[in-house]
Amino acid sequence: MGERAYLRHLRTRVPATAGVLVGLGEDAAAVETGPLVLVTTDSLVEGVHFRREQSPPRLLGRKALSVNLSDLGAMGGAGRYAVVSLCLPPALEADWVDALYDGLLERAAEAGVAIVGGNLAASSGGIVIDVTLLGEAEPGRLLRRSGARPGDCIVVTGTIGAAAAGVQLLTDGARLDDELRLLTPGAWQGSPEPVIVGCLRAQLDPQPPLALARAIGERGLVHAAMDLSDGLSSDLPEICAESRVRAVVDAGALPVDPAAAVVARGRGGEPRSLALHGGEDYQLLLAVGAEELHELVALARVWTIEVAVVGAFLEGEPGVWLRDGAGERRLEPRGHDHFGATSR
Amino acid sequence: MGERAYLRHLRTRVPATAGVLVGLGEDAAAVETGPLVLVTTDSLVEGVHFRREQSPPRLLGRKALSVNLSDLGAMGGAGRYAVVSLCLPPALEADWVDALYDGLLERAAEAGVAIVGGNLAASSGGIVIDVTLLGEAEPGRLLRRSGARPGDCIVVTGTIGAAAAGVQLLTDGARLDDELRLLTPGAWQGSPEPVIVGCLRAQLDPQPPLALARAIGERGLVHAAMDLSDGLSSDLPEICAESRVRAVVDAGALPVDPAAAVVARGRGGEPRSLALHGGEDYQLLLAVGAEELHELVALARVWTIEVAVVGAFLEGEPGVWLRDGAGERRLEPRGHDHFGATSR
Repeated sequence: MGERAYLRHLRTRVPATAGVLVGLGEDAAAVETGPLVLVTTDSLVEGVHFRREQSPPRLLGRKALSVNLSDLGAMGGAGRYAVVSLCLPPALEADWVDALYDGLLERAAEAGVAIVGGNLAASSGGIVIDVTLLGEAEPGRLLRRSGARPGDCIVVTGTIGAAAAGVQLLTDGARLDDELRLLTPGAWQGSPEPVIVGCLRAQLDPQPPLALARAIGERGLVHAAMDLSDGLSSDLPEICAESRVRAVVDAGALPVDPAAAVVARGRGGEPRSLALHGGEDYQLLLAVGAEELHELVALARVWTIEVAVVGAFLEGEPGVWLRDGAGERRLEPRGHDHFGATSR
Repeated sequence: MGERAYLRHLRTRVPATAGVLVGLGEDAAAVETGPLVLVTTDSLVEGVHFRREQSPPRLLGRKALSVNLSDLGAMGGAGRYAVVSLCLPPALEADWVDALYDGLLERAAEAGVAIVGGNLAASSGGIVIDVTLLGEAEPGRLLRRSGARPGDCIVVTGTIGAAAAGVQLLTDGARLDDELRLLTPGAWQGSPEPVIVGCLRAQLDPQPPLALARAIGERGLVHAAMDLSDGLSSDLPEICAESRVRAVVDAGALPVDPAAAVVARGRGGEPRSLALHGGEDYQLLLAVGAEELHELVALARVWTIEVAVVGAFLEGEPGVWLRDGAGERRLEPRGHDHFGATSR
C-alpha cells in the first residue's frame, strides 16, 4: 500500500475532534489553539529504543505517544494534537502497522489528543516512529528547569527503576502480549508474575502522571520540573545546570520500585543503581519549596501517587552529589543517552 | 557528543526570536501563535530520498525545511516554528551534523522560521531528518484540495521536471558542492553548465514559491491547491478525488523545464514524462476559476513566476486524462511514492 492509500485508510480511523479544522489528508493540518502552544518531539528507533521481537506494535504505538505526553506534562501542559511520522521497511506487514496505529489511536483517545498529520516513508534500515505533540498550558504557569532554589526539596513522583528492570527482563526472554498479559517469563520461570509483569509494563507501556503534572502546572506548585526520561543521574544535572544550584541526593530515600528491586537482586545487581541510572521512568522530577510540599503530597494523593523527597537543592557549583552511609560523593551521569556510548 | 551536549551546543546557534517563550533545551518548547495553527511533517530518509555521497549536508538541511515550507504554502499559510528530529548513525562526523544545521538555520532565517525543538537519536540504519513545521494562515482562507469546480483551469506555477532530471544527473555522477557550485558534471562532461546546475539545484535545493502561495491564500484567489511533491500524475488525482471532479491535462501545455528537457533528451527519454511523473518540483498545483486567472497571472508576475494553464477540471468521475495529438487517455500515477514499489 502506498503512502497516500495508507493515509486515506488511516483517515477513516481517526475520529472527528473539536478544534481540528483540517486533519489528515491535506498538505498540512489546521487546528485551533490557545495563544500559547507547547510543542515537543520524540522518536522510537528500532534497535536503539526497542526491538521488534520484544515490543508488540500496539504497545509501541502507545509508548510513542506517552513519551511525548510526558514531556508536555513536565512543562505543566497537556497534549492536544499529534503528528506521526513513520519510516517503515517496505517488507513490514500491514497488520503490524495497523496494530501500531491501534495503540497510537487508543492512547490518543485516553489523553484527549487528536492525530492530525502523518507521514509515511520507506526505511532503508529499521522502523522509526517519530511523534510531534502540540499542546497547551496556562501562560505564566509553565514549569521550567531553571527555577530550582537553594533549600528546595528534590522530589520524585511514583517509583523508579521498573522500566530499566523491564529491559533486563526482555533481554532475559520475558515477553508480554499486546494486551499486556505475560506470554513467557523467559529465564524468570518460577518468579512471581506480578514482579515480571510490573517491570515489563513499565518498560513497554509507561504511564506518566499526566493529570498530576497538569494540576501542578495549573497551581504553580513547584519551582522547577522535568520528566525522568534518561535516569535521575542524567536528568537531575539538567535542573542543576539551568537553575545554578547543586543537588544532594539521599540514597536511602530513593523510591526504588519494589518489583525492580527483586529483578536487580535476582540478576546480582544493585536496586539503587537501577533507580539512579535506569531511565524511562517518565515520572516527574521536581524542585519544591518546603512550604508547598504538603500541598503537593495532598494533591498527588488524589491520583494515589506517592511523592518522595529524595534530597535537597543547595547553593553551590551545579552538580549532583549522592549521600549514603559512606559519605557524600559526586554522582556521575550513567543513564542511557541513546546517542552516546552509554546507549543500551 | 551526547544528545544533551549537542542540543546545548545547538541552543547557542539558534537566534532569539519573537514569539518563542521557551525554545530548545526544555522538555517542550512554548510558542505564541494565532488562533489557527497549521502543522505539517515531512522527512528525508537516507537511501530513499537522498544519498549521502550525492547531497551536501548543508543543502539537505535546507531541503528538509523547504519541503515542509512548501506544504504550508500550499495551504495558503506561512511557516513560523520548526522542530527537527534526527536519527543519526553513531559514526557520523560532527562536521556533517553541523553543516546540516547550517542549512537548516539558514533556510529557517530566510523563511522567518524559528527552530524551537530538537531530538537526536542514534540510528541503527541510515540518516533520518524529520521536520515538523508549525505555521499560520488566515482563518477562512485556507487552501484545500477539495474546492476545485468543473470549469476551473488546472494551473501549475513555475516549470516542472527539473528536480527529477537532477536525480538522473546525480545518478550519472554530477555533483554540486555545498555552495551550489558545480563540482563535477559526471557523465555530462561537455554539456552546458547552466543545464546541469539548474537541474541539480532544483533537486538539491528546491525553491517553492512561498511568497506567491501566501499571497494566493490571503487573497483567496484559487478554489483548490496542493504542492507538486510526488509529480503531476500522482498529485492531480488527489484534487480530483477530494473535489469530485475529473481533470483533462493538455500534454502540449505542460511547462516542462527547459534544462530538464535537455537532460531527458540526452538520456534518450521524453521531457514530457519527467514533467508528468517526476516529482519534487514543489511548485503549486491550483484550481483557478476563469475569472480569477488574470489576477493570478498578474500576482505571480510580482515574483517573476510563470503560471501555466495545463488543462481543465470537468464534471465526471474523479480521475486524470491526458490529451495529446493521439487523443485522450487515462493518466496513471507513476510518481515516486517513496513507500510504494515505484520508489526510486
